[in-house]
Amino acid sequence: MGAPMARRLLKAGHKVRVNSRSIEKARALEPDGAAIISDPARAVAGADAIFVMVPDTPDVEGVVAQIEPALAAGQLVIDMSTISPSAERAISAHLRTIGVSYLDAPVSGGEPGAIEGTLTIMVGGDEAAFKRARPLFEVLGKRITYMGSSGAGQVTKLANQIAVSLTLEGVVEALVFAKAGGLDPARVLDAIGAGAAASWQMSNLGPKIIASDFRPGFFIKLLRKDLNLVTGAARENRNALPGLALVRSMFNLAAVLGHDMDGTQALADALDTFSRVK
Amino acid sequence: MGAPMARRLLKAGHKVRVNSRSIEKARALEPDGAAIISDPARAVAGADAIFVMVPDTPDVEGVVAQIEPALAAGQLVIDMSTISPSAERAISAHLRTIGVSYLDAPVSGGEPGAIEGTLTIMVGGDEAAFKRARPLFEVLGKRITYMGSSGAGQVTKLANQIAVSLTLEGVVEALVFAKAGGLDPARVLDAIGAGAAASWQMSNLGPKIIASDFRPGFFIKLLRKDLNLVTGAARENRNALPGLALVRSMFNLAAVLGHDMDGTQALADALDTFSRVK
Repeated sequence: MGAPMARRLLKAGHKVRVNSRSIEKARALEPDGAAIISDPARAVAGADAIFVMVPDTPDVEGVVAQIEPALAAGQLVIDMSTISPSAERAISAHLRTIGVSYLDAPVSGGEPGAIEGTLTIMVGGDEAAFKRARPLFEVLGKRITYMGSSGAGQVTKLANQIAVSLTLEGVVEALVFAKAGGLDPARVLDAIGAGAAASWQMSNLGPKIIASDFRPGFFIKLLRKDLNLVTGAARENRNALPGLALVRSMFNLAAVLGHDMDGTQALADALDTFSRVK
Repeated sequence: MGAPMARRLLKAGHKVRVNSRSIEKARALEPDGAAIISDPARAVAGADAIFVMVPDTPDVEGVVAQIEPALAAGQLVIDMSTISPSAERAISAHLRTIGVSYLDAPVSGGEPGAIEGTLTIMVGGDEAAFKRARPLFEVLGKRITYMGSSGAGQVTKLANQIAVSLTLEGVVEALVFAKAGGLDPARVLDAIGAGAAASWQMSNLGPKIIASDFRPGFFIKLLRKDLNLVTGAARENRNALPGLALVRSMFNLAAVLGHDMDGTQALADALDTFSRVK
């Protein structure tokens, strides 16, 4: 995700310095005009805005620890990873003590959205910092929403993943039920795909499920990470989410069945296996 | 549902005889040109097509038992209720022995769809009978799909209800999670309502949930009946549907909390109550 986003910033005329744990990947951005910097601290020194885009909470914490000695008051750090809301609040409070602004700004829309600059960006943190970052967000995304104080962007992203997961479970159970009932599942999608059952998940992943095309749009491994984050945040809020707990188990079953590097629609295979046990 | 459908048939120039258990309701169709017939057998005698629209499986079985003595070979009975697929297969096989064609043709789209003639109609039964009924379906609905042999219409409708229910559970859990995380739920819908989490349920019921507006589009009582039908059909097919089992329990909780005559979005109150238990 980081590479196409950096490319859009470069195209918009910004100077971009890039650091990555896989520095070879970063080198691919050199022809686009990026300066590849192998030392994280040197990469961020003096920058107007510093973007972080890594997989999980410990990765963000690690990056922040590496760059912190090089940060100066007045700088702005924008984390676009999907990680724990409470971890974001802790990082934000810590950086505030050295005068550095911090935004959590996770995205949805996947790699196609990153390439085309149509990401949805959900932002938490100081509103003044959000206003400062807004022109940069507009290079990267289309639907940019300020959600509230630090962590609010992450809570929004996790709410999105809850809805995504349960909607997909609904599509998968509807198709399994229809198949067991002797129907042609493609015809079922035709019949029900435009009414009250309609969803992005049904329109986009339904046909792939029917074709057993499990090539990844979004990896099950990453969604499982997000659902773990949901579970942690819900526990902090003493917030029971029974459907989410169930669908998380189904995605874990999908992983056990070898689907971690498949797209989320491989949930269909997990339910199929689960459902076949008599 | 029956009244606006009869009205559309009348407007399209058909002669319509109406029988109803609540004959006073039927009288409201007299100004539209319907003949109100208090005896079911007399209502159906000689008709080209006989529509049935009642709440549940025993109701359809009751109607069929009442009209059967008056039916003659070559007549066509169309059941537009949502009932058990296997009951439809039994009725269809039974009527075939006296030369009567039978279609199961449940609908979605609710009363607005019935009034405007935009219902989704999912049809099971002999394809020849479907072709015969098609001009009548076109008066009543927009998306008319022939799904296969007897019962296939009902299986499709129940698959629709599975997807509807789990999608709504996803919307409700996402909003409860967001609220517990301190967010403005209206802003959450804005942020996530057009991406991968998008659904008819989110767009149409999300704002009602936020406003605690539980006025019925579709009664929880009726959806619970449909989910009972799903459970029965799934059992016959030895088909485990873990998410559906869970969401059915949540709708049952909503009923216990007094929401049976509220709209399905009152599921939000059930989850809220469930989730508040520490």
